[in-house]
Amino acid sequence: MFATAKLGRKLSKEAYKAEVGDLRTQLLETQIGLREHNIPVYLIIAGMEGAGKGDVVNSLDEWLDARGVNVYAFWDESDEDSRRPRAWRFWRAMPKRGEIGVFFGGWYLKPIEQRFSGEWDDARLDQCMRGIRELERMLINDGAVIVKCWYHFSEDDQRRRLKALSRSDRSRWKMLPKKSKFSEQYQRFEEVADRVVRSTDIGRAPWHIIEATDPRYRNMTTGRILLREMQEALAQAPHAERRLDDSPSGSNGDMLPSAPEARITLLDRIDLSQTIDRRDYGKRLRALQTELNELAWHAYTANIATVLVFEGVDAAGKGGAIRRVTEAVDSRLREVISIAAPTDEEKAHHYLWRFWRHTPRAGRMTVFDRSWYGRVLVERVEGFTPHAAWARSYLEINDFEEQLTEAGIVVQKFWLQISKEEQLARFKAREDTPYKRYKITDEDWRNREKWDEYRDAVNEMLARTSAQHAPWNLIAGNDKRFARIEVLEIVTQALRDALKASR
Amino acid sequence: MFATAKLGRKLSKEAYKAEVGDLRTQLLETQIGLREHNIPVYLIIAGMEGAGKGDVVNSLDEWLDARGVNVYAFWDESDEDSRRPRAWRFWRAMPKRGEIGVFFGGWYLKPIEQRFSGEWDDARLDQCMRGIRELERMLINDGAVIVKCWYHFSEDDQRRRLKALSRSDRSRWKMLPKKSKFSEQYQRFEEVADRVVRSTDIGRAPWHIIEATDPRYRNMTTGRILLREMQEALAQAPHAERRLDDSPSGSNGDMLPSAPEARITLLDRIDLSQTIDRRDYGKRLRALQTELNELAWHAYTANIATVLVFEGVDAAGKGGAIRRVTEAVDSRLREVISIAAPTDEEKAHHYLWRFWRHTPRAGRMTVFDRSWYGRVLVERVEGFTPHAAWARSYLEINDFEEQLTEAGIVVQKFWLQISKEEQLARFKAREDTPYKRYKITDEDWRNREKWDEYRDAVNEMLARTSAQHAPWNLIAGNDKRFARIEVLEIVTQALRDALKASR
Repeated sequence: MFATAKLGRKLSKEAYKAEVGDLRTQLLETQIGLREHNIPVYLIIAGMEGAGKGDVVNSLDEWLDARGVNVYAFWDESDEDSRRPRAWRFWRAMPKRGEIGVFFGGWYLKPIEQRFSGEWDDARLDQCMRGIRELERMLINDGAVIVKCWYHFSEDDQRRRLKALSRSDRSRWKMLPKKSKFSEQYQRFEEVADRVVRSTDIGRAPWHIIEATDPRYRNMTTGRILLREMQEALAQAPHAERRLDDSPSGSNGDMLPSAPEARITLLDRIDLSQTIDRRDYGKRLRALQTELNELAWHAYTANIATVLVFEGVDAAGKGGAIRRVTEAVDSRLREVISIAAPTDEEKAHHYLWRFWRHTPRAGRMTVFDRSWYGRVLVERVEGFTPHAAWARSYLEINDFEEQLTEAGIVVQKFWLQISKEEQLARFKAREDTPYKRYKITDEDWRNREKWDEYRDAVNEMLARTSAQHAPWNLIAGNDKRFARIEVLEIVTQALRDALKASR
Repeated sequence: MFATAKLGRKLSKEAYKAEVGDLRTQLLETQIGLREHNIPVYLIIAGMEGAGKGDVVNSLDEWLDARGVNVYAFWDESDEDSRRPRAWRFWRAMPKRGEIGVFFGGWYLKPIEQRFSGEWDDARLDQCMRGIRELERMLINDGAVIVKCWYHFSEDDQRRRLKALSRSDRSRWKMLPKKSKFSEQYQRFEEVADRVVRSTDIGRAPWHIIEATDPRYRNMTTGRILLREMQEALAQAPHAERRLDDSPSGSNGDMLPSAPEARITLLDRIDLSQTIDRRDYGKRLRALQTELNELAWHAYTANIATVLVFEGVDAAGKGGAIRRVTEAVDSRLREVISIAAPTDEEKAHHYLWRFWRHTPRAGRMTVFDRSWYGRVLVERVEGFTPHAAWARSYLEINDFEEQLTEAGIVVQKFWLQISKEEQLARFKAREDTPYKRYKITDEDWRNREKWDEYRDAVNEMLARTSAQHAPWNLIAGNDKRFARIEVLEIVTQALRDALKASR
């Protein structure tokens, strides 16, 4: 993979000077164009120690409009980073649409270090690289440009370079003790790097291997690569937008025969007649809440985080069920995130960004009142999101939840269902009760008209996103009390299991 | 202060039931009204241990529309919290305009604990309370409603309550060891609480002392207080908006005689003819950057953070000066924040929120390319902000910077000045150089027409916001190289001094 980075390529001062003005002009024009088209750029700067990656970034900083460029180096983790899934810190730094994020080492630094140090074996590394491929594909599908540069040189060149660096006062501080191993073990490092680079050299985000010996060659080549990738994205931008607009949106349940028996959904299998005795309810509620209170503190001590997702038909009783959970859990330990329309910062990122930002720290609980599933429910049914985009998101959502559970987070998802008649009764009751009137809007009535479309969307969602580690729980909601007890039973059971497994 | 909380007040079940429906309706209506008027509400829930503060919040959660209510408990700090100025974590949790933030303990919990434990003396506590008064005034001036509730009971009642709590399984976990001291030393705690409550009982955000013995009385009273405060804010809302709109905006330099000698500004005192020899420049630049590189690493080790603020006339060379600093500092240690138009999340908060969010962690450096001074520059001159609001912000800015420096952050502010002729020459040169053309817009030309208005605004800003601990450095920018060296000299000197003082 790295043979082309040991050829001794260089660039003369004159040739550099002759080219750089034109490069800057084009880079700037392209940057402005991408900004206008809201296309985000991820520039990943990785490679050998001593290859002058910082100097590359300084050049780009000068050539580009620095106001749209943000540089991130991922090295020491804060405890807020380390107490969340690995990808959280990257999501935190994602550039907005139209901006350029320069990622030092990107998501590659830590895996390489962990394989190099022997902490990980090849299998673990490969698994991580698969995750990275998914992440990059997801960002690209969302319209991003990812440019990956790897800086490399021969063993001799690196030895010379590291020697020079250790002599120079200015760079002495960079030579952190841990890093010196890299030069000592050039070959081993190259092996790991080769594995990483090869396995993530995907078509739409290829690696560019750049010889790092000559600074002028190195910087100019980086500028040219970045320019070309950005120009290509810009050239395709109008086309990409049109393609998205053209794609049909709506339910794909339409391929089914229209007879009702051919359209049975998972929702139809819920026994909505289930009910609980009023007195039993009070007793069970107290017992479960008492237990949940303790379990939440135990989970805090054991660093187990919990994510609860509540979705359901309008007026199915999400709010009431959530309140029975939050009442029980100390307010120091939990947070409720109500999902409404995204803010403009949220809109300027991949749709999962707004959920990543609320991922709980180890030991805490986050309750989502509506969630990322809006993507395949309201956004699909209302046609807010093109077909290709929401269809893709089943995979993205599964992947997201897998990352949560891999980090040890308990994930439980609840779908609250009521019958169409029960919904009507509740809508009317809301209109009649002064302090419930705010809960019912014209939109609720409009959604009700789309009952069947939603039912089909929910059915597909349940099928595609139920996983052992992040299951959907279908809750019969016609009897509110029954539903609340069900939810509490499931949450306590999940926490009990997780605590047992952690011991 | 607490005598009224020991009267044995209570509320019967029947009276409670008779009132609660009406209360809920009114609370909801008022909440919706405040949302429409973009008025944020801060509800601070503080008081004695065992007073049922969690239960109060659960009631409110049920009565209000939970989707506009966020509950925050400030107890264990993450290292991102603890490595920044004290107020950072509160700023992080500030509700958006139109939303309700419920703050458990609020900014009062830690000071009380620290005084109670003897870590702080009265003087230190009083100083902290002064800061809190300023913070609350600032939020109120920005349109917020602050409702502060203190829950209290007699010594006997507390003893009974804590005993009951320790018996009940459900609450056993709340009785953290540290807290049990509170009950043992009822009197001492009451003394501290009295001092805190009295010294922060300001007219526009008074404390409400609520007897906590009877849960129905406690919850209902809280609801009624919150309702009244919110209703009052809502009633004044149209009036407040009109008052802001009516207030004259613009320079108050107009009171001065019009003769030029009466209008000399601090800017006129800058000797713009200062220059540096080209060869000297190269040598000094290398030496200073080398030193700065090391100093930045030393500061990292010593946990000293740095905030650099760059403001200046258009085309004065801010970007170039900033780059000479960032080139020298390892990219792992610094971040550049370019201030452009605020996002809608930023607009939904106090104007300082967007700067608080970028406050560096201990050991890091944040460079602001334009800053909070926009409030008294562009927002003033262009009339974006009413006179009363920007005039108030000198105090708010001084207070903000004081909080930074109190937390050990090095703050240096740079005003880059060039002559009007030099600006014209640079504007023209920018138009002639392809890769600089993006830097010059119609807005720059328009700003240039307001040269004198900006000069007066800058003059006042420099006068009002220069402080020993956060000084303005006036930089002669006609010779770019001279300016860059000046900036580097000041930054290195400031870091050197801070490191020396920290030893």
